[in-house]
Amino acid sequence: MVIVQKFGGTSVGDLERIQNVANRVSKTVKAGHKVIVVVSAMSGETNKLVGFTEHFGENPERAEVDMVLSSGERVTAALLAIALNQMGHKASSMTGRRAGIITDDAHTKARIERIETQTMQAALDEDKILVIAGFQGVNEAGLVTTLGRGGSDLSAVAVAGAMKADLCEIYTDVDGIYTTDPRIEPTAKKLDKISYDEMLELASLGAKVLQNRSVELAKKLNVSLVTRSSFSTAEGTLITKEENIMEKPLVSGIALDRNQARIALGGVVNRPGIASDIFGALATSNVNVDMIIQTSGHDGSTNMDFTVPQNELTDAKAVVESFCQKKEIQDASFDESICKVSIVGVGMKSHTGVAAKAFSTMATENINIQMISTSEIKVSMVIDEKYAELAVRSLHNAYELDK
Amino acid sequence: MVIVQKFGGTSVGDLERIQNVANRVSKTVKAGHKVIVVVSAMSGETNKLVGFTEHFGENPERAEVDMVLSSGERVTAALLAIALNQMGHKASSMTGRRAGIITDDAHTKARIERIETQTMQAALDEDKILVIAGFQGVNEAGLVTTLGRGGSDLSAVAVAGAMKADLCEIYTDVDGIYTTDPRIEPTAKKLDKISYDEMLELASLGAKVLQNRSVELAKKLNVSLVTRSSFSTAEGTLITKEENIMEKPLVSGIALDRNQARIALGGVVNRPGIASDIFGALATSNVNVDMIIQTSGHDGSTNMDFTVPQNELTDAKAVVESFCQKKEIQDASFDESICKVSIVGVGMKSHTGVAAKAFSTMATENINIQMISTSEIKVSMVIDEKYAELAVRSLHNAYELDK
Repeated sequence: MVIVQKFGGTSVGDLERIQNVANRVSKTVKAGHKVIVVVSAMSGETNKLVGFTEHFGENPERAEVDMVLSSGERVTAALLAIALNQMGHKASSMTGRRAGIITDDAHTKARIERIETQTMQAALDEDKILVIAGFQGVNEAGLVTTLGRGGSDLSAVAVAGAMKADLCEIYTDVDGIYTTDPRIEPTAKKLDKISYDEMLELASLGAKVLQNRSVELAKKLNVSLVTRSSFSTAEGTLITKEENIMEKPLVSGIALDRNQARIALGGVVNRPGIASDIFGALATSNVNVDMIIQTSGHDGSTNMDFTVPQNELTDAKAVVESFCQKKEIQDASFDESICKVSIVGVGMKSHTGVAAKAFSTMATENINIQMISTSEIKVSMVIDEKYAELAVRSLHNAYELDK
Repeated sequence: MVIVQKFGGTSVGDLERIQNVANRVSKTVKAGHKVIVVVSAMSGETNKLVGFTEHFGENPERAEVDMVLSSGERVTAALLAIALNQMGHKASSMTGRRAGIITDDAHTKARIERIETQTMQAALDEDKILVIAGFQGVNEAGLVTTLGRGGSDLSAVAVAGAMKADLCEIYTDVDGIYTTDPRIEPTAKKLDKISYDEMLELASLGAKVLQNRSVELAKKLNVSLVTRSSFSTAEGTLITKEENIMEKPLVSGIALDRNQARIALGGVVNRPGIASDIFGALATSNVNVDMIIQTSGHDGSTNMDFTVPQNELTDAKAVVESFCQKKEIQDASFDESICKVSIVGVGMKSHTGVAAKAFSTMATENINIQMISTSEIKVSMVIDEKYAELAVRSLHNAYELDK
């Protein structure tokens, strides 16, 4: 098999850990696989370098920032190649440029446009271990670019796709995706398999492990991902397409998102296009609206409730207040003491009663549901934040996720 | 004018110093010059990275070592470009690759083969300040290489030559070349001008400032060098071709080399080719022989005296002892308690009596001269190490270098 193994910053945090990574890669090679390694910078290094670039004033030239930031991964990649060579393997490090990772021009948050695989393929054909500096590429002009937060995961997934790898293993300091946050519900179990779509919906559970950008790319490129720990030999969680999951669980996990705020608009003027105006203005201000509920008032006006991330609440308030001044909204209230609990599972598509069980569980616990939103594989409820843990534990128990 | 300014590791040792460098470059640009800056890594950074590469075992893969080491200069170059942009200048950093610096394949000690100047020229034509990562280039295969010790100076001189710069300023923590070491002779004066050949002969005075490799390259490319301090505004020392120096001083400086050992061979067998055999064997063992004296003994055998660097004495001893075992050398003695004092000056070419004055000065001080060697612009004497300072001071005084 061709396996891509990606090691994050904590996994290559010092020289001893780089040696441990070399040992793990060596084991995979000795088991008969061809390995392409993708590495991040040593933990702390990127933050240090970001600090350097910000020392001279605000908004440093982004192309220059990329030149600085891209150096951390180069160092780790070459050090790991050195360690592997010392163990008797043939290993070569490659920068994003050498690996043929071509991006657009958006310095510090570039998108991978294509991968020219000749150099990687030639090295792999010579039975070399490739060690690729993650997080970086070059634009058409040949200038180095970086991919933004979680960029090394994107590098790994994109390389796995381009090289038609059988598997892309993402090594971090956690050992997989759990049915819910084990700090809230100690009986939470590690999932063996999960579909891309479930993973995307469970983002709040997996955010520490994998960003949605990487899961979306894996889905698009049909790359099977495994997230596992670089500090243990435990099997991780396979993230793959739904067809690869034989036994489809009704509910895979319970996600909790505490980073939401609720905005309630009362007496919204009843004219065509008002919703488009409000949410258009929010979009222009880069506010990400999540759930939206609209109800009609008795006087012909409209109530609208929606949620936004807490750190975008200030921007959202400004937009809402501009409509209040125009008298198009009568009153607005803002509530940060809420949270969103979601039940996720591909099995819901073909089963009824999943949502009903969620609502009855909340009722049993006397938890008031403020907003509801559903999709094919998800039921989300907005509740008072103080019930967050209770709701998660009750739902985890109701769907028997500890079994 | 087009001016190349090279700043070493201590000059860019932290973010405040990088800002100081930016201020100095800015001043030069505002005076109407086009500036190409060449930078080293922050002081300490390269040593740290070398340590990393040596952690996993001996003789790490050199191509990978270059990948690691080349990162330090990239960071400094981009940070300086950021600082200059923040001051309102247009500045772009360039790696060795982007600057078109093509080297041979000798990783960790590559030689510059040529410089493809198009990208640098285009940026300069747009009135940009170029900030080039020193110490590095790429080989024909596109792999990054480094130039070995003093490599950033070589980058600067080579770029100055290729870009037909009017001046190449080397900024360090010392403010120029002195008539002798001021720690030995406090009346030592800073030289305004000196020829390439004198600089090469005065290597021991200039070693902290400039390596001979860089001076040789400057001579070959006819690049006028200035060494000066990045921590003061004092004028430095211009190193240029002899024709540019109107008033040729009889003696420019007194150099002292304490790092020599003397090997005296007695009763060397008298057969054709013996000298070639001995010095050939020393060369094979990478021993750099400096001065050689040969005299005939009364019995038809030969005495040979020569000097080698102290840190090569062990290797030299091994070679000499192999000849002793073959009975081709009767006896050998090794003396580390010597030093070499040299008087250097282009004016010697057209003046007589310079050497005689050196010998009489030694005689006046009762210092025994063990070996003498002369060239067109130099007189060197090997003496007992304990007289080193006395000899330097007497000669400095005899040639009136404090005037």
